[in-house]
Amino acid sequence: MTPTTYTSRVFTLESLDVPGGTETVLRGGRNLFPLLPDAFAGIRRIGVIGWGPQGRAQALNLRDSLAGTGITVAVGLRPGSRSAADARAEGFTEESGTLGDWLAVTADSDLVILLIADSALAAHHRELFAALKPDAVIGLSHGFLLGHLRESGGEFPAGHAVIAVCPKGMGDSVRRLYVQGAEVNGAGINSSFAVHADPDGRATDLALAWSVAIGSPYTFVTTLDGEYRSDIVGERAILLGAVHGIVESLYTRQRLAGAAEITAYERSCENVTGPIARTISRAGLLAVREELDAPGRDIFDGAYTAAYGPAREIVAEVYDEVADGTELRSVILAEQRLGARPMSRIGGSPMWAVGESVRALRAERELSVDPFAAGVFVGTMMAQVDEFAERGHAWSEIVNESVIEAVDSLLPYMHARDVAHMVDNCSRTARLGARRWGPRFQAAYEQIAYPAADDPADAALLAAFTTHPVHEALATAAKLRPPVDISVA
Amino acid sequence: MTPTTYTSRVFTLESLDVPGGTETVLRGGRNLFPLLPDAFAGIRRIGVIGWGPQGRAQALNLRDSLAGTGITVAVGLRPGSRSAADARAEGFTEESGTLGDWLAVTADSDLVILLIADSALAAHHRELFAALKPDAVIGLSHGFLLGHLRESGGEFPAGHAVIAVCPKGMGDSVRRLYVQGAEVNGAGINSSFAVHADPDGRATDLALAWSVAIGSPYTFVTTLDGEYRSDIVGERAILLGAVHGIVESLYTRQRLAGAAEITAYERSCENVTGPIARTISRAGLLAVREELDAPGRDIFDGAYTAAYGPAREIVAEVYDEVADGTELRSVILAEQRLGARPMSRIGGSPMWAVGESVRALRAERELSVDPFAAGVFVGTMMAQVDEFAERGHAWSEIVNESVIEAVDSLLPYMHARDVAHMVDNCSRTARLGARRWGPRFQAAYEQIAYPAADDPADAALLAAFTTHPVHEALATAAKLRPPVDISVA
Repeated sequence: MTPTTYTSRVFTLESLDVPGGTETVLRGGRNLFPLLPDAFAGIRRIGVIGWGPQGRAQALNLRDSLAGTGITVAVGLRPGSRSAADARAEGFTEESGTLGDWLAVTADSDLVILLIADSALAAHHRELFAALKPDAVIGLSHGFLLGHLRESGGEFPAGHAVIAVCPKGMGDSVRRLYVQGAEVNGAGINSSFAVHADPDGRATDLALAWSVAIGSPYTFVTTLDGEYRSDIVGERAILLGAVHGIVESLYTRQRLAGAAEITAYERSCENVTGPIARTISRAGLLAVREELDAPGRDIFDGAYTAAYGPAREIVAEVYDEVADGTELRSVILAEQRLGARPMSRIGGSPMWAVGESVRALRAERELSVDPFAAGVFVGTMMAQVDEFAERGHAWSEIVNESVIEAVDSLLPYMHARDVAHMVDNCSRTARLGARRWGPRFQAAYEQIAYPAADDPADAALLAAFTTHPVHEALATAAKLRPPVDISVA
Repeated sequence: MTPTTYTSRVFTLESLDVPGGTETVLRGGRNLFPLLPDAFAGIRRIGVIGWGPQGRAQALNLRDSLAGTGITVAVGLRPGSRSAADARAEGFTEESGTLGDWLAVTADSDLVILLIADSALAAHHRELFAALKPDAVIGLSHGFLLGHLRESGGEFPAGHAVIAVCPKGMGDSVRRLYVQGAEVNGAGINSSFAVHADPDGRATDLALAWSVAIGSPYTFVTTLDGEYRSDIVGERAILLGAVHGIVESLYTRQRLAGAAEITAYERSCENVTGPIARTISRAGLLAVREELDAPGRDIFDGAYTAAYGPAREIVAEVYDEVADGTELRSVILAEQRLGARPMSRIGGSPMWAVGESVRALRAERELSVDPFAAGVFVGTMMAQVDEFAERGHAWSEIVNESVIEAVDSLLPYMHARDVAHMVDNCSRTARLGARRWGPRFQAAYEQIAYPAADDPADAALLAAFTTHPVHEALATAAKLRPPVDISVA
């Protein structure tokens, strides 16, 4: 379904071996920055619209990468935006012509990167489109607007290239790892790119240039629709929603078995965001199981095979509803409803207070991987991998949306703060999705998976895991990224 | 939004005092059966299509009520239906011309009552419509088909009256309480009715006749759309989905506090389906609180005010998505997906095994209302009442869909079996809805409500409960129903 190859006039591309074939990838790095002016031919001014986490990170990275090229980066904000002060503090100012009203900056830019919140995009895209210069290129970092236009019967304006560069990680990670890239060349967050409209043939190289300039170690191709599906499903599943369901259910299971609060937290939330995520990031999925002792592997196997099926069922349901537009409609309804009725916060439940105590103890010891938690987590991750594979996503997209984004960006962030903080503070669309689907995963683990976890492990399911093509794909992807410090201060 | 008055040529109607005005109601009873031939003027043959719980109950009730009138009741089944044997055992036979292929029976009937499953209706309504006699009346017991036609761009066939009579209870209750009505005149399950299309002016009396003939003690008016919304929201909220969330979360809360399994079950599931339901059925909602001692009332108050807000949030979300058609799309997607991937069952979790032991102990003692469980349950019930009131439903519809159907039909059934059995065995649409939303309620109680239940109770919220207009509406509705034995064998 999603394409796997592309060509570039400017950049040297590589062919990645993946299960079943090859995929084109652009290996990034600061050594490519001298090529940026050529790849950005025709672009004198880039307007980054929005100063949320992505807007901020991308504007800073672009400006740093394009320093000295004569290509300016300006930030456009909606009237009354409270981000103006921080943007100015980072050197985007009215005086230098690099900060202004979002419509004014749009009208003045050759590449307009729309990084405002989904709801703002839904509400204001028509005005923004109307402000565009005739040949301006529209840039997105998320397929949401495509979904919205489809549901609402709207369209991208004709005659403009429409490209997307979608970092597979939070804005915070996009900036932080880019900065690390000054020391360790190639550090960054991977991105997918898509060309949705290309009136004059230059769209691909513009997208690649943008991706290189924001620091992507590894840029792979997709479609806006494929990005939309995998991203929105992912945040409701293994990236956030299911994680919440996993940690809540694991915590409760521990407490019901008599574990003290701190122990329960260490065997649930702390374990998933800490040692499990780090193991996968360092050494892949199989390593999680292989680095356990024999009794631990038995526990892992029982948990994995019990969790996989129920998790898969829900991922399939989420996927259907995202692909169908149904999930988007619920997001839009929620936006309307939340005007009158703000969303309650989940960070108040007792589990999260325990988290603070646990984080205070961290310096004192190294936590080992909990086999049961690992089996549930990896089982769920594999359920998403398999669902995406069944739906036709390319391997690059599968491994980035199902594994790498989780272990390199989101879980380290949660480790530093906690899952509830994440759920209560991430993008509105992700937050709504996590609140909607997290409990589904939680209930499925508690009511179906955990009662079955002591049954004999399903040998066929385990064999499918150990021989799975994803391990090869993940190892290949890992080769493109230098070892980075994924921890968050 | 929903109408509240109507007129009849045949039946004597009453005017019910409800908060803010009056509503028309038809008081049923076997004494009205002599009026049926006149009200059914023009109807010689009634075809009941489908032999699920509703089809079975309504066919039997109609045949009993119309005995000796010359109006025949025939049952139409899809080819290969496994219900044929049971229908024959109940006296609907090919030989007597009262059992046949669904299209043949449709073609032969003056009133065609479509009681097949929602998915079958979605798939086959066009064939059924095509088989209708020119003046045949289309009867439905659920607004689903209206929602489906809207989503799919279809229509009811022109020139046919379209009426609905919607019993506010399970098919099993519709039959069981009708049979009780032989002893206690007026026993039965209330129904709403709607006239969606009325080409010749007789639709209202046909609907009322149908409602009286199936034993409704109390028939009130609504629209197909209002019925659809309140019914589909209700089954995802206090009728089933939220009940599941309530009992799971209460059980876990008890166990986390150290209660033994049997005690935990008695203070959660057994309490809600048993003494709490019976108290509301006997004496209304306020009685649940008033019959507690002073410490119990304090606990109730804390639980009520903690649960109300989070529950209300979810009911509002469900309502938006049902009204918008989004929930229907998810049901349709699920039907497609379930062809390939059957739904897992939830009855295997340990809680339900405990239920069997608890039911074995029932004869030994009378369980008293658990104040915390009662506060959570009544708080959730009131959240639904308030949401329906805000959305403009008439009081009759509010109290039937939010209170009476729960305590007179569904909870007694769950008491005899258990909630998991219900979730695993009720109508496909209800089951999908309960599985989808139950965990949302559960998570909200566990993560938001219960941590706040020891906070000082919200006095304004409690005052709103004690002075609520719903108590008057419920008392008025109760006057129309003779005391019945709601327990299920």
